[in-house]
Amino acid sequence: MRNKELGVLDFRRIEKLVELWLDEDIGHGDLTANLMVGANATGRFCLAAREPLVVAGLPVAQRVFQVCGRGITVTPEVDDGATVDAGATLAYVEGRARPILTAERTALNVLQHLCGIATETSRYVAAVEGTGAEIVDTRKTTPGLRMLEKYAVMCGGGRNHRLGLDGGIMLKDNHIAVAGSIRDAVEGARKSAPLLTKIEVECDTLDQVRDALTANADVIMLDNMDNETMREAVALIAGRAVVECSGGVRLETVRSKAETGVDVISVGRITQAAPAVDIGLDEA
Amino acid sequence: MRNKELGVLDFRRIEKLVELWLDEDIGHGDLTANLMVGANATGRFCLAAREPLVVAGLPVAQRVFQVCGRGITVTPEVDDGATVDAGATLAYVEGRARPILTAERTALNVLQHLCGIATETSRYVAAVEGTGAEIVDTRKTTPGLRMLEKYAVMCGGGRNHRLGLDGGIMLKDNHIAVAGSIRDAVEGARKSAPLLTKIEVECDTLDQVRDALTANADVIMLDNMDNETMREAVALIAGRAVVECSGGVRLETVRSKAETGVDVISVGRITQAAPAVDIGLDEA
Amino acid sequence: MRNKELGVLDFRRIEKLVELWLDEDIGHGDLTANLMVGANATGRFCLAAREPLVVAGLPVAQRVFQVCGRGITVTPEVDDGATVDAGATLAYVEGRARPILTAERTALNVLQHLCGIATETSRYVAAVEGTGAEIVDTRKTTPGLRMLEKYAVMCGGGRNHRLGLDGGIMLKDNHIAVAGSIRDAVEGARKSAPLLTKIEVECDTLDQVRDALTANADVIMLDNMDNETMREAVALIAGRAVVECSGGVRLETVRSKAETGVDVISVGRITQAAPAVDIGLDEA
Amino acid sequence: MRNKELGVLDFRRIEKLVELWLDEDIGHGDLTANLMVGANATGRFCLAAREPLVVAGLPVAQRVFQVCGRGITVTPEVDDGATVDAGATLAYVEGRARPILTAERTALNVLQHLCGIATETSRYVAAVEGTGAEIVDTRKTTPGLRMLEKYAVMCGGGRNHRLGLDGGIMLKDNHIAVAGSIRDAVEGARKSAPLLTKIEVECDTLDQVRDALTANADVIMLDNMDNETMREAVALIAGRAVVECSGGVRLETVRSKAETGVDVISVGRITQAAPAVDIGLDEA
Amino acid sequence: MRNKELGVLDFRRIEKLVELWLDEDIGHGDLTANLMVGANATGRFCLAAREPLVVAGLPVAQRVFQVCGRGITVTPEVDDGATVDAGATLAYVEGRARPILTAERTALNVLQHLCGIATETSRYVAAVEGTGAEIVDTRKTTPGLRMLEKYAVMCGGGRNHRLGLDGGIMLKDNHIAVAGSIRDAVEGARKSAPLLTKIEVECDTLDQVRDALTANADVIMLDNMDNETMREAVALIAGRAVVECSGGVRLETVRSKAETGVDVISVGRITQAAPAVDIGLDEA
Amino acid sequence: MRNKELGVLDFRRIEKLVELWLDEDIGHGDLTANLMVGANATGRFCLAAREPLVVAGLPVAQRVFQVCGRGITVTPEVDDGATVDAGATLAYVEGRARPILTAERTALNVLQHLCGIATETSRYVAAVEGTGAEIVDTRKTTPGLRMLEKYAVMCGGGRNHRLGLDGGIMLKDNHIAVAGSIRDAVEGARKSAPLLTKIEVECDTLDQVRDALTANADVIMLDNMDNETMREAVALIAGRAVVECSGGVRLETVRSKAETGVDVISVGRITQAAPAVDIGLDEA
Repeated sequence: MRNKELGVLDFRRIEKLVELWLDEDIGHGDLTANLMVGANATGRFCLAAREPLVVAGLPVAQRVFQVCGRGITVTPEVDDGATVDAGATLAYVEGRARPILTAERTALNVLQHLCGIATETSRYVAAVEGTGAEIVDTRKTTPGLRMLEKYAVMCGGGRNHRLGLDGGIMLKDNHIAVAGSIRDAVEGARKSAPLLTKIEVECDTLDQVRDALTANADVIMLDNMDNETMREAVALIAGRAVVECSGGVRLETVRSKAETGVDVISVGRITQAAPAVDIGLDEA
Repeated sequence: MRNKELGVLDFRRIEKLVELWLDEDIGHGDLTANLMVGANATGRFCLAAREPLVVAGLPVAQRVFQVCGRGITVTPEVDDGATVDAGATLAYVEGRARPILTAERTALNVLQHLCGIATETSRYVAAVEGTGAEIVDTRKTTPGLRMLEKYAVMCGGGRNHRLGLDGGIMLKDNHIAVAGSIRDAVEGARKSAPLLTKIEVECDTLDQVRDALTANADVIMLDNMDNETMREAVALIAGRAVVECSGGVRLETVRSKAETGVDVISVGRITQAAPAVDIGLDEA
Repeated sequence: MRNKELGVLDFRRIEKLVELWLDEDIGHGDLTANLMVGANATGRFCLAAREPLVVAGLPVAQRVFQVCGRGITVTPEVDDGATVDAGATLAYVEGRARPILTAERTALNVLQHLCGIATETSRYVAAVEGTGAEIVDTRKTTPGLRMLEKYAVMCGGGRNHRLGLDGGIMLKDNHIAVAGSIRDAVEGARKSAPLLTKIEVECDTLDQVRDALTANADVIMLDNMDNETMREAVALIAGRAVVECSGGVRLETVRSKAETGVDVISVGRITQAAPAVDIGLDEA
Repeated sequence: MRNKELGVLDFRRIEKLVELWLDEDIGHGDLTANLMVGANATGRFCLAAREPLVVAGLPVAQRVFQVCGRGITVTPEVDDGATVDAGATLAYVEGRARPILTAERTALNVLQHLCGIATETSRYVAAVEGTGAEIVDTRKTTPGLRMLEKYAVMCGGGRNHRLGLDGGIMLKDNHIAVAGSIRDAVEGARKSAPLLTKIEVECDTLDQVRDALTANADVIMLDNMDNETMREAVALIAGRAVVECSGGVRLETVRSKAETGVDVISVGRITQAAPAVDIGLDEA
Repeated sequence: MRNKELGVLDFRRIEKLVELWLDEDIGHGDLTANLMVGANATGRFCLAAREPLVVAGLPVAQRVFQVCGRGITVTPEVDDGATVDAGATLAYVEGRARPILTAERTALNVLQHLCGIATETSRYVAAVEGTGAEIVDTRKTTPGLRMLEKYAVMCGGGRNHRLGLDGGIMLKDNHIAVAGSIRDAVEGARKSAPLLTKIEVECDTLDQVRDALTANADVIMLDNMDNETMREAVALIAGRAVVECSGGVRLETVRSKAETGVDVISVGRITQAAPAVDIGLDEA
Repeated sequence: MRNKELGVLDFRRIEKLVELWLDEDIGHGDLTANLMVGANATGRFCLAAREPLVVAGLPVAQRVFQVCGRGITVTPEVDDGATVDAGATLAYVEGRARPILTAERTALNVLQHLCGIATETSRYVAAVEGTGAEIVDTRKTTPGLRMLEKYAVMCGGGRNHRLGLDGGIMLKDNHIAVAGSIRDAVEGARKSAPLLTKIEVECDTLDQVRDALTANADVIMLDNMDNETMREAVALIAGRAVVECSGGVRLETVRSKAETGVDVISVGRITQAAPAVDIGLDEA
């Protein structure tokens, strides 16, 4: 796995999210832990995988514990991006038992969710192995968790498409209709967009692909095309633009799409239909 | 569906969440909409179900559009809690096209997610129909979306367990170990907890169930017990406490558990493994 | 005093309150301290009781100093919940003099207020000693200080009723009118409320008490009843529900109410009419 | 009462406070109102004085209702600053019943608190009537409510001293010790303070008063002096500085202090020991 | 001027900035306006240019008045991007006089600042007219005002480079040193960056320009090159990448740089050295 | 330079500003640094003056680096207020290279801006040297940077006028018109303003100066008067009030104004027209 990009997590921001998450669960106070656990009791726990999974978000879970209570130590046993078996210890958590128990559910919730996404992504990545196509994500993410979910996609071997509406120009039907033609839309965008922004055009037909090529679009999206048409589009484009395949991709169909020669395949399901994986906090 | 409790959504808070979600997607600005859509262009769109689903979160999607741009009208065609077919129009969205397009993805993301949860919940509710058992949720929710997901569970016909760590006392192994016995734990909790708080005890064995009964626990959780043991526990308790079945419940197994006579069955998967359903924004 | 529940203070939240309080007093800057006290001058001070009092909020005052200036040490000499005489040293405060002087007034304001509440509470607790009745608080607290004031009540030997509107169901006249009867109100509430939530019914007459009993209310509030009627109500209820006495309770009348046999007496005046006690910051 | 200064309330800020207060009470949601009151039920209520009082904070209570639920109308029957009898209607509140009931306690809590301060202040103001002395407040206010409490003091006929640490220079013993002498302290302050800031010197002895006069202090505080010494100080100062009397002032002693000829008397107890007055929300 | 991109201002965010700005100026309250202006007095004022200028930020000034006081009407007489003479009326401001006077300074401060930037930008744009080069901004903006200043650049006829660190890859010496070569740096970036992100390489020499071309950089920055070398670089690149001239550009030198054939010239001084222009609020 | 007042920076607040500034530049993430710089690479850099300047804001730049990444050491080589030559090292910055590079632009932006203001202020201070007049600032500051810019003015040898609208009463034409006369305006203000607040009257004519004197204004502003009239005003006032000269002051004209005998000269241009000075971050 590409190591460096995992640094993309911005911990200043993550800690603000963690505050919101803890507030949401704790409300007026953790009645059980406050009443039943001594203020000075300490404990040692481990985060354990209960099924095979790809790890994503250990440093996030770490912050959940540490924001909840000062002086808690979280020691990862594996790196984000690693594939582990059921039973693997992901990290040790040590310190005052009360804030650890208060934070437990929130830490597990986020970790299970992110590992779920990384694990699902890795299945798509494995399915296209050797075809040269990359799996990319979409903006179909859970509100409030965009950056974390896009990070989990990277942990699973995928790549990000754009991070938000400010990360590129994406011209769709209605924009092209307003502009009059694909060429006018692309030219208008190129004239006014910030200098370092790429322009992608969504195409439903080969004619649109031709127009987008003429207009020098940076990326051409083949939207819900059948594989045969995609193959023609790839031939037409011939390397002059990045080719993205999009629309209703599932694990069963992804390889056949990859074999059409497209450069990237965007998959909404890696963020929208990845079930949480099972991870527990056990006494260690 | 019980109508009144759907009022539980607190729109002051939801609008603050909506601000975060929009900030997350928009970042420095929606480059495409700002450059390609005229500031005064208007449009009429509809939110359309692309598969059968139980509706949850229409008023939330409504706020996403309205927070993004003033003067946008969202007119629901159905109520939250309704079951609709593929093709159904959920709501009309009218107003300035630019903020509607900017908000589109965020509105769909939250709506698809909440309808997904309501739809999944409704499957479990249907599965136990006639047994007298209720489906309740857990604290296994997506960080930042707790109240919305618990609301979606209600839309699907389920009931909430507790809303957060301040909504009840839940005594587990480690608390009981610290207190010395179930009786001491329950008594300690009853003495110090706020007056209107119930106390639940997690039991793995029938002996623990007997102790919890003696201690006058309000709710007794049967944790990962087999159906036979659960049946015995139900007989033992004989209506003196609410009986909750918990642990690894799946759609295939939920009815047999319900038939043991338990009062409520808590299911993590209705919030942790409910795939987003397909909903689109079309021109109307 | 019960030690464990004092852990209920959530310092993540308290530090956010402290930020607001300091901002409120400091505004654009502490002109006097900034101009008159050297940036590196240090000092040692003590928080001293100037009258007998019950201590509450020392860890809060500690945070006020520490949020205002890094590296300030606050060493408590007594625990929250302790009763001290005039002249007692509550804590030592050491470090850079400038932030200590800037924080002084805010720290004293909150400490004097919370000790005032704990002290007043302890008078009511003493007055009912031996009767078996407990003193509980209400939601009549100073806006913005709810959790701190409820904590101070515990320091004074009282108990909390509910922490907020999400901490229990309280059925009053208007709710019962809407529902049709006490029974319908309680049953409706029991069906829809989160599983771990208790239900209390406010009763003005013995007939209402009978209805609440039949409906299996968890807690029955005797609202502004005379002592004779309360005694009858207690006999009627006979341990089948918790009995709360409420309404216009004063220090002079609390014992006679306690002697009616009620379980708890809620007193608004412990949070609404407790004058600040006198505490000063002296050079040590 | 001076009408214009009552405009000093900054409603942008008050609405942010109201958000905090409502969050604090509502937590995860108002379980009772949400379950028992229909979403569309409306009602008409009145805020009624249950004892004689001076009104302060009606526009604040108004905002509490309006922030809690859109479309609620609050119609004041009296102005802040008015003196009313027991039984007087302070305002009518109309609109959807659910948010009105949810906001009720918070609105009453702040209104009872502020009216309590205005009422207590008015007693001190009445006590010094005709002496020419003014009653001023201190920074001994409830953390988080500074501006509201200072506003309530004005409603009661008092005047503000300074609003926060940025509202003037107050030189005390330790500042003077650092500077070397009162003269050096005042001169140092005058050279560096913002141009529009006054300088006050706290004096314990007549010698200090003389030094403060020589140094051209704008305000001279007579700190805990006996009445005889205060009279001498007033004669000494002879109008060349504003004279403030401070320290342990009570309702019983305030007039004799006022008769010494001081210009203003600062009273901590009007904000620290003013019990909440009784106000209720009744159906109208 | 290109009209559509002026829509780029995100008013949800601007209103949050306005809140901060007003808080900063108002502090505990606008003493003068509150004491001297009747709460119901109204007025009609105009924003008047006192020197020739290019307009930028009128909708921002409008929000300052409207956030400060409800019901204030601001009617622009000109559009952002317009060039006006001394004496021109920019907008009328009508409503309650008190909040208008309270907001006056903040509104003028931001408007004078943004018009200053637009005016300065327009001078550079005029200086390169006819050369085909565009003036672009940099990230050298005032902390907290990035988006507004970049908007003012557009009002002055300039174009944005990137909006923030997430808006493109910019490879400098140290990145290239780490990667080993320009080619490795560009390839590494292209593999891991989000799909719609362009890559720019900063070049000091023609050799570096050649390497950047080979590596297929999207944009090549000629950093502090003399005009002769820039001319050679432009010839070398021959349209295969966008060419940016950067470094110490001043109004006196900008045209000669533009005449080398570069595509864009980035100018820090349009945001870092543009004096505020003179605009006043007069009674109308 | 006066050392103590430099302590006026409130670092609790500055760190909140720094968070906003970093969020603004970083957006979804620093793509370049995250992809190109190893997570554990470290570096040593220096902040170097590229032109002669007066230093202001080093502790602010320090916080920018430290908020962006934990464990970064910033060691100042000079104090704020110092005058340095081109080439001078202002501070060393050491630690993980990635957050240092991410923070670089924001740190430089604020430092260049504040040093620019201090440097410009020092030119005005030098110009009036020996006349006894002080240079004071105005409220014409960049929205969001008020306290930092006022601090930079002090670093340049200037003095603050008032910090915000709550820091003094400033009576202008319209206030006086409302009140009826200067005397009524001043008396009204003195009666209602907080006790420690000074009152300034803006005068256009000698008649107004006479009225302000009679009314015992604390400060008299001579607004846009010619030097001859100012000289007469100074003679008239004769030390009975502080005299401020205001209106269109430039470096070329400031000395002649100072020589009229006024006490302070307020200059908007030191905050509104001070170009950023050139400072760079170099490897050390």
